[in-house]
Amino acid sequence: MPKFLRVDMAKKEVNFEDVPEKYLALGGRALTSQMVLDEVPATCNPLGEFNKVIIAPGLLSGTNAPSSGRLSVGGKSPLTGGIKEANAGGICSQKIANLDIKAIILEGKPAEKGSWLIKVSPDGAELLAADELANKGTYEVTAILRERYGSKVGVICIGPAGEMMLMGAGVATNDAEGNSSRYAGRGGLGAVMGSKGVKAIVVDAPKTFDVPVKDKERFSAAAKKFAKVLMDHPVTGEGLPAFGTNVLMNIISEAGTLPTRNFSNVGRFANANNVGGETLAEVAKARGGKATHACHPGCIMRCSNVYPMPDGKVCSPIEYETAWCFGPNLEIDNLDVVAKLNYICNDAGLDTIEMGVALGVLMEAGVIPFGDADAAVAALEEVAKGTPAGRILGNGAVFVGKAYGITRVAAVKGQGIPAYDPRSCKGNGVTYATSPMGGDHTAGYAVTANILKVGGFVDPTKAEGQVDLSRNLQIATAAVDATGLCLFVAFGVLDNPEGLPAIVEMLNAQYGLELTVNDVVALGQSILKNERAFNAAAGFTNADDRLPEFFYNEKLAPHDTIFDITDEELDSVFNF
Amino acid sequence: MPKFLRVDMAKKEVNFEDVPEKYLALGGRALTSQMVLDEVPATCNPLGEFNKVIIAPGLLSGTNAPSSGRLSVGGKSPLTGGIKEANAGGICSQKIANLDIKAIILEGKPAEKGSWLIKVSPDGAELLAADELANKGTYEVTAILRERYGSKVGVICIGPAGEMMLMGAGVATNDAEGNSSRYAGRGGLGAVMGSKGVKAIVVDAPKTFDVPVKDKERFSAAAKKFAKVLMDHPVTGEGLPAFGTNVLMNIISEAGTLPTRNFSNVGRFANANNVGGETLAEVAKARGGKATHACHPGCIMRCSNVYPMPDGKVCSPIEYETAWCFGPNLEIDNLDVVAKLNYICNDAGLDTIEMGVALGVLMEAGVIPFGDADAAVAALEEVAKGTPAGRILGNGAVFVGKAYGITRVAAVKGQGIPAYDPRSCKGNGVTYATSPMGGDHTAGYAVTANILKVGGFVDPTKAEGQVDLSRNLQIATAAVDATGLCLFVAFGVLDNPEGLPAIVEMLNAQYGLELTVNDVVALGQSILKNERAFNAAAGFTNADDRLPEFFYNEKLAPHDTIFDITDEELDSVFNF
Repeated sequence: MPKFLRVDMAKKEVNFEDVPEKYLALGGRALTSQMVLDEVPATCNPLGEFNKVIIAPGLLSGTNAPSSGRLSVGGKSPLTGGIKEANAGGICSQKIANLDIKAIILEGKPAEKGSWLIKVSPDGAELLAADELANKGTYEVTAILRERYGSKVGVICIGPAGEMMLMGAGVATNDAEGNSSRYAGRGGLGAVMGSKGVKAIVVDAPKTFDVPVKDKERFSAAAKKFAKVLMDHPVTGEGLPAFGTNVLMNIISEAGTLPTRNFSNVGRFANANNVGGETLAEVAKARGGKATHACHPGCIMRCSNVYPMPDGKVCSPIEYETAWCFGPNLEIDNLDVVAKLNYICNDAGLDTIEMGVALGVLMEAGVIPFGDADAAVAALEEVAKGTPAGRILGNGAVFVGKAYGITRVAAVKGQGIPAYDPRSCKGNGVTYATSPMGGDHTAGYAVTANILKVGGFVDPTKAEGQVDLSRNLQIATAAVDATGLCLFVAFGVLDNPEGLPAIVEMLNAQYGLELTVNDVVALGQSILKNERAFNAAAGFTNADDRLPEFFYNEKLAPHDTIFDITDEELDSVFNF
Repeated sequence: MPKFLRVDMAKKEVNFEDVPEKYLALGGRALTSQMVLDEVPATCNPLGEFNKVIIAPGLLSGTNAPSSGRLSVGGKSPLTGGIKEANAGGICSQKIANLDIKAIILEGKPAEKGSWLIKVSPDGAELLAADELANKGTYEVTAILRERYGSKVGVICIGPAGEMMLMGAGVATNDAEGNSSRYAGRGGLGAVMGSKGVKAIVVDAPKTFDVPVKDKERFSAAAKKFAKVLMDHPVTGEGLPAFGTNVLMNIISEAGTLPTRNFSNVGRFANANNVGGETLAEVAKARGGKATHACHPGCIMRCSNVYPMPDGKVCSPIEYETAWCFGPNLEIDNLDVVAKLNYICNDAGLDTIEMGVALGVLMEAGVIPFGDADAAVAALEEVAKGTPAGRILGNGAVFVGKAYGITRVAAVKGQGIPAYDPRSCKGNGVTYATSPMGGDHTAGYAVTANILKVGGFVDPTKAEGQVDLSRNLQIATAAVDATGLCLFVAFGVLDNPEGLPAIVEMLNAQYGLELTVNDVVALGQSILKNERAFNAAAGFTNADDRLPEFFYNEKLAPHDTIFDITDEELDSVFNF
C-alpha cells in the first residue's frame, strides 16, 4: 500500500502514514495541489510554521511509461503568495514511486537554526542533523551524498539561496550523472524547504521501473503505442532529441516574439543563433559533450544536453528559457556566458528564469549595463554570498524592480514571465495572466498553436481564439502534470488522436480503472479549480489575473502589437 | 472660486481648473480619496504614468479654526498597493487654502530623467527645472527654496528616498521655522512624487487665515467654543502641550502594550522613561529647545517640540511613535540616538515609523544587533546613499523581512504597525487589520478607550467591544481628516458633547451649509467606502484584513494575551 512520508520539522519526527482514500487516485500536481488546499492555511506566511512542502511523483512515475519521471513539488509560494506546483525531471520521482511513497510532506518549523537531511530507503526514513552541508552549493551537496550513500541515490536539495529563504530559490534534483541541475525551480519552493531547515532528501531506491501495475500486458501495449506517438511527431521525435528545447531560439526570434533587453519593444535578437540550439549542439559535441541526453531513465525525447564549459565543468542542460533569459533578455550573445550563469544558478539553488528576468530589471535600472557578461556573472555570484545586493537579486524580478523603482518588470503574481513576449504570442499572454501559478510558460504553452502550428493554428498577434487556446492548454497541462509525464508529450498528443487515449489506457492498466478521455479533462479542471480556490482564499482576485501595464501600452516590433485581450476575456478563462 | 492646480508631468504643463460641483464640499482626505477613486486606475503601477499625487488642504484649513492646518496627500500607495491618504502638519495647508486651491494634482510621468519644482503663488503656477536640487536632503532643499523665495514660503518636498522611489519615502512639509520635518509619511507617497520627477512644491501665499467664510460671526463663535473644548480636556489642554505625544511612552509601557525588540513577546520596556516625553521635555528645555511648539499657526494644542541635538542641529518634533520605533523597538534607550535617527529620516525623506519597524526586522535578522545605536545609525544612513543595503531598508519592514527571510514582521497590507501592540491594545489591532490604509495607528486610534479612558473604556486585553470601537473611530477619523483638523482634537471631542457640534457649526458657517452631526458621520462612512472600493478594485479582499500570524500565536507579557478577534468579527468592521 502506498504511504505518505510525513516529516515534522518542529518535533523532528518522520512518520509513514496510510494514504487516505481520497488521495489514492491522485499524483503529481493533482496530489500536491489537493494537499496544499487541504492542509495549508491559505493566508499563512509562506516561510512560517504552517506552510508545507509536498513532494509527489506523478501517477505514472516509476512505471516504464515513456518520459514519466517528473516530480512535483507543491506548497504556498513565497514569490507569488499563491499555490505553487513546480515539477522537475531527474531520477527522484521514479525512485520515490518505487519506494511506494505517494508523497513526502515537510511541515512545521524547527525552533533552532540548523540543517537537516532526510534519508529514505526501503528500510524506512531517518531525519539526520546535517550541519556539515550548510551553505554548500547543490553540486557539492549532491556529490557528498552520492559519495556517502552510493552513486545511484537520488538527491533532492536546496542551495544557499534556499537556506537564505530567497524567493528565487528552487528545489534541485539530480540526473543519473549526479548533476544537481533538474529544478522544480519556480515560485521559491526552495525557500520554503529552507524555512524548514531541510537541506536535502536522499532517496535510495534500488528500483526504477517497478511500481505495481495491475495489468502489465495492457500497460505495455499502451506504453508502446504512446512511445510511437512521441517518436512519430516532428517535435518530440526529431526537434527535441536533436537540439533540445533551445531549438526554439531561432524560431521564436524569427517569429518576432523573443523578448529582448528586458522586454523592450523589439521582439527579435540579431544574434539569436549564437545562443540557439543548433549552435549549442555543435559546440557541445565539439567539446565532447552531448547534444541529446535523457534527464531520467526511460525518457525517449531526450531533450537535455551536456554542455562542457571552458572551465572544465559541465552545464546540463541548457534550456531554451534559460538561454533566452541570460541571452537576448540581457543582450548577451555568448553561450559560454549563458552556461556559466546557468551553472551559478544551479549551484546556488536558484531558478534560472527568475534570475534572468531579475537581471534584466537590474540592467534596466542601470545598476549594471545591458550586454555586460562579466557584470552579470558578478551580480549573480553575490546571491550565494548573501550580500544585500545578492539578496535583492535572489528575491526575483519584482523585488529588484521595487528596490530600484523600476516599472518595466515582466511578472504576473510576482513571478517573472519567460521567453515569449505576450504582445505577439498572445495565447501565452493569456496563460501568464491567468495561471494560478503566476507568469509561467509551462502552465498553458500556447506557443504550440501560436507559433509551432501544433494542435492547429491561432494567429499569435491577434486576440481571437487565445482564451480558448489557453484554457484548453491549462486544463490539459494540469492533467499531464498529475501523471508525471513530461509536458513535452503534449506536442505528440495535440497532433495525434491516439496520444491521449494511450495515456488514459496506461493509467487504467496501472490502477485498474476505467477512466475515459473526459475523465482526464475533468481531472485537469479540478486541479485548476483547487488551485484557484486556494488562491482566492489567499486573497487573489481578478485584479491579479492581469499583465503588467506596459504590455498594454507599448507596441512590440516587428508586429507592432500590444497585448489587447480584454479583462472580461481574461476573466472568462476559468469558465468551465 | 476654488481651483484645482493640475500638473501634467508628461507634457510639463500646469493648469488651473474649475473645481467640479461634486468636489466642492470635500476637502482633505475626503477629497483625495474621492479623486484617487475617480481618476487613478486601481490596478495601475503605483510608480507608473497612471498614478497621481493629490494634495489637498482640509475643509477648515486656512480659517482660524484651532489646529486646522493638516494637509492631506493621496494616491495609490507603492507600499500597500492600495489607496493612501497621509496627512501632515506644517504651514502648507493653510497657504494652499489661502491661494484658493482646493487640490494640487500631480499626474503623468516625464519621459526623461530630471527634477522639477512647482512654484505656486497668487500670481499663478510655474513648473521649473530644478536639477540643482536633485539628491539633496529635505533640510537643504527647504533652506535653498526659503532663501530663494523668502522665508515665509511653504515647501512640500521629497528627499533622496523619494527620488529613488523607495517605498518608505514620505512627503515633507515645513514648519514656520523652516524645518522640513512635518511628514505625510506613510505609504510611500514620496516615491510616487519622485516617480513624477517633482522634487518640491513652493507655496508662496501671503495669507494664513483668510479663506472665505460665509458667516464670520457664526464661525468665530463656533471656533471659540471648539477651542474651549480642546483647552478643557486634560489630554489636549494639558498632556499634549506639556510633553507632546511622547507623554505616551511611560503610559503605554506601564499598560504593557509597548512593543519591544521587534514586537517580541514582552510589552514593557524597563528604560521607557529614558526616551519618554517627560525626559524629552526636560532635556529639550535644558538645552535651550522647546517642550511645546505649534507645527502650524493657530494650533492651540502645541504638541510639537524642538529638541536640540548634540551636533547643534535640532530635531523638531520627536513624536511618540518615532521615539518608540527607534527606542524600545530597537532596545535603544537614548533620546539623542532617537533624535539622530529621526533627523536622518527627515532629511532623507523617509517615514520614521516604517524605518523604525524595518530596523527592528533588520535586527531580528541579526544583520545588526538589537540595542546597537551606531549600527542603527549607519544602517539608516545607507538609505540616502542608495546602496543595496540602503534600498532594502528604505523599502520598509516587509521588504527587509523578505530580503532576510524573516517572518516576524509587524505589518498589515505591507505597512509597518506602530507603537501599540495589538495583542494588548486590541482595538488598535482591529484598526491595523482592517483600515484601508494598512497598519496605521491614526486610522482609528483605539488607545483612547483602550488605555487612556477617553471616550469610555474598553478593556484592551479583551476581544469584546473592540470592533465597535474601531469602527466608530475609523469613521470619525475619516471625517476629521476631511476637515484639516488635527486628529488630536478627537480627545476633546470624544469626552465633550459640545465638541462635534462645534466642528459642524464651523463647517456650516464657512460654507453656508446646514450639516448635522449625522452628516459628518455619513461623510466619514462615505470616505471609508470610497477607500474600500478602490482597494477592492485593486485586488484587496478580506484576506488582507488580517494581522501577521505571530500575533495570533504568541502571547505578549505581562498580560499573556494573543490577538483573538475572529476573522468574522474583523469582517464586520465595515458593516454600515
